[in-house]
Amino acid sequence: MTSIWHDCYTRGLMSKTVQELAALIKGRVIGDGQVLISGITNLESPGPGLITFVQDEKTLKRLESSPIACLIVPSSLEGSSKPLIQVPQPKLAWAKLLEYFFPAASYSQTISEKAVISPSAKIGRRVTIEPFAVISDLAEIGDEAVIRSRVFVGSNVRIGQKSILHPGVTIYENCQIGNAVVIHAGSVIGADGFGYVATPEAQEKIPQVGNVVIEDQAEIGALTTIDRATIGSTRISKGVKIDNQVQIAHNVSIGPHTVISAQTGISGSCKIGAHVTMGGKVGVGDHVEIGDWTMVGAGSGFPSGKKVPAKQVVFGEPARPYQEARRQIAAQLRSAEMLDEIQRLKEQIAELEKKIDACLTVPGRRPGGRS
Amino acid sequence: MTSIWHDCYTRGLMSKTVQELAALIKGRVIGDGQVLISGITNLESPGPGLITFVQDEKTLKRLESSPIACLIVPSSLEGSSKPLIQVPQPKLAWAKLLEYFFPAASYSQTISEKAVISPSAKIGRRVTIEPFAVISDLAEIGDEAVIRSRVFVGSNVRIGQKSILHPGVTIYENCQIGNAVVIHAGSVIGADGFGYVATPEAQEKIPQVGNVVIEDQAEIGALTTIDRATIGSTRISKGVKIDNQVQIAHNVSIGPHTVISAQTGISGSCKIGAHVTMGGKVGVGDHVEIGDWTMVGAGSGFPSGKKVPAKQVVFGEPARPYQEARRQIAAQLRSAEMLDEIQRLKEQIAELEKKIDACLTVPGRRPGGRS
Amino acid sequence: MTSIWHDCYTRGLMSKTVQELAALIKGRVIGDGQVLISGITNLESPGPGLITFVQDEKTLKRLESSPIACLIVPSSLEGSSKPLIQVPQPKLAWAKLLEYFFPAASYSQTISEKAVISPSAKIGRRVTIEPFAVISDLAEIGDEAVIRSRVFVGSNVRIGQKSILHPGVTIYENCQIGNAVVIHAGSVIGADGFGYVATPEAQEKIPQVGNVVIEDQAEIGALTTIDRATIGSTRISKGVKIDNQVQIAHNVSIGPHTVISAQTGISGSCKIGAHVTMGGKVGVGDHVEIGDWTMVGAGSGFPSGKKVPAKQVVFGEPARPYQEARRQIAAQLRSAEMLDEIQRLKEQIAELEKKIDACLTVPGRRPGGRS
Repeated sequence: MTSIWHDCYTRGLMSKTVQELAALIKGRVIGDGQVLISGITNLESPGPGLITFVQDEKTLKRLESSPIACLIVPSSLEGSSKPLIQVPQPKLAWAKLLEYFFPAASYSQTISEKAVISPSAKIGRRVTIEPFAVISDLAEIGDEAVIRSRVFVGSNVRIGQKSILHPGVTIYENCQIGNAVVIHAGSVIGADGFGYVATPEAQEKIPQVGNVVIEDQAEIGALTTIDRATIGSTRISKGVKIDNQVQIAHNVSIGPHTVISAQTGISGSCKIGAHVTMGGKVGVGDHVEIGDWTMVGAGSGFPSGKKVPAKQVVFGEPARPYQEARRQIAAQLRSAEMLDEIQRLKEQIAELEKKIDACLTVPGRRPGGRS
Repeated sequence: MTSIWHDCYTRGLMSKTVQELAALIKGRVIGDGQVLISGITNLESPGPGLITFVQDEKTLKRLESSPIACLIVPSSLEGSSKPLIQVPQPKLAWAKLLEYFFPAASYSQTISEKAVISPSAKIGRRVTIEPFAVISDLAEIGDEAVIRSRVFVGSNVRIGQKSILHPGVTIYENCQIGNAVVIHAGSVIGADGFGYVATPEAQEKIPQVGNVVIEDQAEIGALTTIDRATIGSTRISKGVKIDNQVQIAHNVSIGPHTVISAQTGISGSCKIGAHVTMGGKVGVGDHVEIGDWTMVGAGSGFPSGKKVPAKQVVFGEPARPYQEARRQIAAQLRSAEMLDEIQRLKEQIAELEKKIDACLTVPGRRPGGRS
Repeated sequence: MTSIWHDCYTRGLMSKTVQELAALIKGRVIGDGQVLISGITNLESPGPGLITFVQDEKTLKRLESSPIACLIVPSSLEGSSKPLIQVPQPKLAWAKLLEYFFPAASYSQTISEKAVISPSAKIGRRVTIEPFAVISDLAEIGDEAVIRSRVFVGSNVRIGQKSILHPGVTIYENCQIGNAVVIHAGSVIGADGFGYVATPEAQEKIPQVGNVVIEDQAEIGALTTIDRATIGSTRISKGVKIDNQVQIAHNVSIGPHTVISAQTGISGSCKIGAHVTMGGKVGVGDHVEIGDWTMVGAGSGFPSGKKVPAKQVVFGEPARPYQEARRQIAAQLRSAEMLDEIQRLKEQIAELEKKIDACLTVPGRRPGGRS
């Protein structure tokens, strides 16, 4: 583990008092507000002089014996030898302090002479364009946007204000990227959707003439692919967060503030709702619809055309309501025992049958009430 | 949705009559051939002045009340208030009209001064090479090929005529790309196969000295990896279509016109036949063989060494014939009920046993015919 | 298949005798040590003049009728009309000869004028930097390192001696790469971990302020992503081998000499031990721990928080000990039969019940020993 304290130190950060930090996150100090805090950490490295957050009493007690200097806690928690800062959402407050201790990178707001920029492109104010970036004909780059090294911005693409495209991102022609969007290194936005018509001899390509629209505040991970629509737009709505190595096919629409974890794949024409959460490695067949606020467990699979209502928790392959999936999977893990059990039952029944036949063959008797 | 009509308009496309479009796709007009068509669309956006295709009567009836101007239909369909164009394969005809309304991008056929081209490379006629591309020693680029921005072409690589390498593609040394091949952004062709010999201390690398051969008319998606052979060639045959984020390992061979969907992984030395269709997220162990025309469902898995005959439909983990897989999976989804059922059967049998024992303990009787 | 012999020929390689090759791999010659060997091959292409290896007697016998010139065999094997070279580990010896016949690529050890190198970067001796590479502020590049075309090295990154970054690799700021590390094309090291705090309105980003540390002799495949830690380091230990399209999340640690196959995904804060082997497409939930020397079958899945001891062989979804998983999966594949069997048992029991009731309703008798 890198020493975080050391990191802060080398950045020349001035220490702050507990009271000063509490003010930044609008928290209430319990204990000594004058203690000096020199950096921020997580639960795994609770070093001296540092601040972190806890969510529950058990962890708070455990940290009593650690050298950590201060803890951000929920408003319901108190009782510690260390100064505490009470807030409604400790993790959120901690995230804000992280940003305070480690300010986001700043960019040069200059345009490299080693970039290639079409004369017909329209470049906003205070834009950063790093070496080996390419801005094609008729592209528009919004104010304060950051186009990092060897990003390719295709013709007629629009990039909104304050958006950041990390090194090696490719945006194909006609795509539209909103404001304050972040796209991590190497992702490809707007490659052709995967559409062919099979003939007996070969596969005939269906031209992919639509585009991709990514709305404001969306963040896209590294090496993710979002294909252009066959016709119309593949749409990533406002505030969507997509992890690394996710594949979004042509004509998909993802609703606002939905979160999609790594290596998930979403096939053509799916409609994913708002505030949906998807675990990693989920596979979604084409034309699937998933309602708002639904949660999808990691590794789940959806057959083509499946419709999932809003506010469900689903899981498994095929994805089913969570409790049902858990119950069935637990039973599946006993399949071998079931097989053995069935075998034993067969033997018991055969045994019983013998006994009954014996019973029924008592001389002078005939079976079945027909005696 | 982007207005398609608007797109066409801004491209300055002249409207065409139904009759003129029918001629382009060799179709037969039913109804008014003089209706003007200004653009093309899909079933989701059936706007006025536009043309699309339908495959069945039900959809044709449904579209009667839409503003769509004209429909491409199978030769068997008729009976509409709108002009129809009958063709044997409506989707194929529609794909051809898409290409007509949205002509493929054209490239400059010039070589950027900002590209780096080895003096020993051999560059064909009317080749396009965009800024920041690298063409290494002894590489050959065929006539009318397009090497887009920051493509890396390794030493001794051959790229055929009219092939297009989209931005950021990497072709390692000695690989061979045929004619009219398309490779989408960021894909990596010819990285080392994943081969090591484990010793008790470490992993010793097996040098990967073969190459990758991609034959004519193949199309490779974005961020796909195709590893070079350990010895010999990894081979992607003529007309193969590979989606995004597919992994093809060393020494694999893929037969002509096979289609492989996104996030599928194929391990070392597999032999996949011709005209195979693989869904997304399929996992194929090493040395698997899959016969021609076989169809593999999404998410299926194949253990190493598995051999699948030609013309099968297989599915599941492990992959089995489709009907069998469906039957077993349907039953698996009832595992918890089976477990309950077995418990009930056990209880019933215990109850029966008691009854029989009662029956057999009637005074003066002995069991089993031995009385 | 490319003719390997031809490859060797065109490289101008002089033929060597069996005896000379045996000396290179410290083997013992059985048979004629003066036979000339002109190249090296694998079992699939046993051409004349070539050498390869076999592990077992059966394959040795099979190759008797092939034109292959010489075989590397385990010390226990002999008895062939062809000259043999006995060694303790034939595959390892073959890998060494592969390197002899196909020497690793050499690089120019020059710095391209078309690269962009910060004046504050520190560049070692005999470093290769190819065109369109970017070396950012305060970065350090070790002696004899190779930074290939359009690699992006972020600010304050350290690259060790003799490491090779293939075309298009991106290393985000503050990451540390050891000595003799190889990273294949397009991989992204140090993008932000995927961390947000969900509020009712949106997802609030948790700043990702840690880094990635990759230790000596690690090798990373193409288009793999390794995310920076939220705080501290994501760590890839010495000698780890990672395949293509693998996703390693924030704060993961991978122990020395572990091998991870393609398309595997490892979620946040997992601790994977040393000498672990993971098949392809494995999915690992967050905070999972896997002990040293454990082997994980392809396609396996681990729920969050799972702990797997050392030296296990595990498999399946969820991953279980291999024999157990095999047993359960084999039974699961008979689920439909189980369902039928249970139905039959129910019918048999109903039938038995009837018989018993008949038995018990014989006039003058009462059930249950209570008669």
